Amino acid sequence: MNMKAEFVNPFLEATVSVLKTMASLDVVPGKAYIKKGSSACGDVTGIVGITGEAEGSLCISFSKNCILDVISKWFGEEQKEINEDIKDAVGELTNMISGDSRRRLQNMGHTFHGSIPSVISGPGHEVKHITRAPILSIPFSLNGNSFVVEVCFK
Amino acid sequence: MNMKAEFVNPFLEATVSVLKTMASLDVVPGKAYIKKGSSACGDVTGIVGITGEAEGSLCISFSKNCILDVISKWFGEEQKEINEDIKDAVGELTNMISGDSRRRLQNMGHTFHGSIPSVISGPGHEVKHITRAPILSIPFSLNGNSFVVEVCFK
Repeated sequence: MNMKAEFVNPFLEATVSVLKTMASLDVVPGKAYIKKGSSACGDVTGIVGITGEAEGSLCISFSKNCILDVISKWFGEEQKEINEDIKDAVGELTNMISGDSRRRLQNMGHTFHGSIPSVISGPGHEVKHITRAPILSIPFSLNGNSFVVEVCFK
Repeated sequence: MNMKAEFVNPFLEATVSVLKTMASLDVVPGKAYIKKGSSACGDVTGIVGITGEAEGSLCISFSKNCILDVISKWFGEEQKEINEDIKDAVGELTNMISGDSRRRLQNMGHTFHGSIPSVISGPGHEVKHITRAPILSIPFSLNGNSFVVEVCFK
């Protein structure tokens, strides 16, 4: 599968929809772009593997401030550090964005499966997708913070 | 799929075999165990999502010293830092261990698919598998260093 423009929307819309539904947040998607060779950076990242019509992966990387903001809104209680509850919540968000994206792709006639998510935590870690295929990167902003969704398929 | 003893060997043997083939290294598996709730820690980690008979994930986490030792042997040249070549090599190792494990599982009648791997780097990052299922952890030692392979299926 080539990473064509038509594949941007399922991931973009799923991210907006899941954050609206779960945390009542209006996140603002920036301009999606195709990149090669570089990596996502974040303080907490959810990753899910994708198989089916093509093999790929999906990750969503948050800065610490951004995820504390998201989860504070979701839980209705101020969050001050990246603890186990927040890691689990990032796993759940990742799972929901993966599922919602794949439903949208299914409606376009493309069948994909998702693995269980893993959540990485650690200040300023880097996520590198091991593929020669282009990587779709969609930046989002939220109250002055930002996060990124990255998808690739080989 | 329950994480039974019969599922330990495919992952254990694949890890030993891939490191022997690629880097001529004799890694020593420790006692595999089932854990709940805790996370793998490392300085560089390869992750691959698994789908098919069950959804799961596989990760292999190395300390900095351990991966520098592995890749120095593999490349035949001393490696001093975790650079892009090393991250790519961890991705390749992860892919090969994923493929070899799945071939061994296929021979036992279990069909699984693997996503493309992601490689995480960053000192002391943590990998949390988002599942209520038990996690199989297999520690390995190598010249006084250690690394861990973790697998879970829901």
